[in-house]
Amino acid sequence: MKLGTFLRGGRQVPVLFVNGAAHDLQEALAGAPFLEREGLARHGFSLLDLIAAGDTALDALRTVAMDAELLARSRIADGEGQPLAPMTRPPKNVFCLGRNYAEHIREDNVSRDQKTELPKYPQFFTKPHTAIVGDGADIRYDERVTRRLDYEVELAVVIGRGGRDIQAGDALGHVFGYTIVNDVTARDLQRRHDQWFKGKGLDTSCPMGPWIVTADEILDPHALRIELSVNGEVRQDASTGDMIFRIPETIESLSAGLTLEPGDVIATGTPSGVGYAMEPRQFLADGDVVECRVEGVGVLRNTVRAVS
Amino acid sequence: MKLGTFLRGGRQVPVLFVNGAAHDLQEALAGAPFLEREGLARHGFSLLDLIAAGDTALDALRTVAMDAELLARSRIADGEGQPLAPMTRPPKNVFCLGRNYAEHIREDNVSRDQKTELPKYPQFFTKPHTAIVGDGADIRYDERVTRRLDYEVELAVVIGRGGRDIQAGDALGHVFGYTIVNDVTARDLQRRHDQWFKGKGLDTSCPMGPWIVTADEILDPHALRIELSVNGEVRQDASTGDMIFRIPETIESLSAGLTLEPGDVIATGTPSGVGYAMEPRQFLADGDVVECRVEGVGVLRNTVRAVS
Repeated sequence: MKLGTFLRGGRQVPVLFVNGAAHDLQEALAGAPFLEREGLARHGFSLLDLIAAGDTALDALRTVAMDAELLARSRIADGEGQPLAPMTRPPKNVFCLGRNYAEHIREDNVSRDQKTELPKYPQFFTKPHTAIVGDGADIRYDERVTRRLDYEVELAVVIGRGGRDIQAGDALGHVFGYTIVNDVTARDLQRRHDQWFKGKGLDTSCPMGPWIVTADEILDPHALRIELSVNGEVRQDASTGDMIFRIPETIESLSAGLTLEPGDVIATGTPSGVGYAMEPRQFLADGDVVECRVEGVGVLRNTVRAVS
Repeated sequence: MKLGTFLRGGRQVPVLFVNGAAHDLQEALAGAPFLEREGLARHGFSLLDLIAAGDTALDALRTVAMDAELLARSRIADGEGQPLAPMTRPPKNVFCLGRNYAEHIREDNVSRDQKTELPKYPQFFTKPHTAIVGDGADIRYDERVTRRLDYEVELAVVIGRGGRDIQAGDALGHVFGYTIVNDVTARDLQRRHDQWFKGKGLDTSCPMGPWIVTADEILDPHALRIELSVNGEVRQDASTGDMIFRIPETIESLSAGLTLEPGDVIATGTPSGVGYAMEPRQFLADGDVVECRVEGVGVLRNTVRAVS
């Protein structure tokens, strides 16, 4: 299943995508018994609430997906809703992994005349929820803040069942599904502030979406083609099989002594082809259209806008 | 005023401290007109909600603080509530500043045989809400995760009015108040994972409290003595005047292109005296009592517990 979030009538509603159409899950699930049990019946519930509700919610969603009448009734007409990121406010800042594809580390080191050494442990940093935007939204930047805006396509994992000290062998059982994150980065700020948070944390620098594909639909998350293009020119093109730290190891490492919660998002790093490592260097500019594509997940498309 | 959060009858309630006693603000403010206007009347409201409500809420709190009858009625009897961090769930991960006191940078470099260079720009990283605990709580660590747990006392700023691109000259007008953060750090993980998040993000590694002192009570946040002791032995003892990046500059830098929200917490870095720079190195161990003290704010006391 493909699950996301729309802005509809001024409210955020969880949606199910079937054959390209979005269906309002607050309508489709109205009266479902699990909502009452989970304390979700009275208020509008979010996709995050459904993820936290676990298997019962997933079963109810599968029932909706196969019920033509419910789908017809809950269908959001074109132009009647606006896509947002699947989760606009995960429980924590979005977790991100740096330097997780060997070719990307090589291009980074070559661009800075340094010797290539692969990391022995995953390098984690975060992006705040204020950076998150959805498919179709603008990536906005102010030239007084950054003049070196760059892209990074990443496969992102959404946690279903939370936990701490999760072992690699159990880790995929904690994955609710997969989405795409563009880890937009202000390279000048990233270097200047030493720790990466500032260069990675600007508003609109975390496009996410277009939806979450549930884990059952991705047979092997390490056999997916991952691509990014700018104005149709392919810049990144790799396989998620090239990750240095695979998803189970990443979850084991991240969750050691640190509690993961339903809805936490982990972006798993970007392959080679980023703009600052090109010759000559290429940074994002006003009007650029950035398309991130992960096989089996979808396409996340955003337009860059200079603002002041 | 001193404002915090208690766990009382299974619910988190905002509290006002007067002469050492805690008063339940859900009781004291019941019926206050601004609650209705802010949409807070129906549900239990949190200290974060009050901070977001702005000056009206502050005015109502001042009225409570001077009303002996209201205070008597809302007083939480000893043992009837348990102190939590003033905010258990700020809008974003807690923002932290690294390397913001020159003496601390020197001790770090000496301990690693490196030359001392002061940062030209603030170095930001984050700690997730799952790391936050309150005054009196245990700092728990698992020897299978870290064997090098260290302390760092810090003055923390709580944002009142949110904003982006806040100029240094306006920054203090965005500060709701001040609290204390102990930026507990697993030094082995901090080094190993390169980016600091993992070594700084373990559960219980962000003691915060004991309360927030509103900004009007701190005449100069850069003239406060800041101290930390372990089992009564003073380890850190400095002045917040020694910060390299002062609070207005920090807020300007952090908010450039990045929206701050009411309740966001910024820990402003630690002075010298951390355990890993001592000779011989000292790390925290089971049973250690860590006391963080900031003049005009209070004392934050936690006990270290090894768990398995």
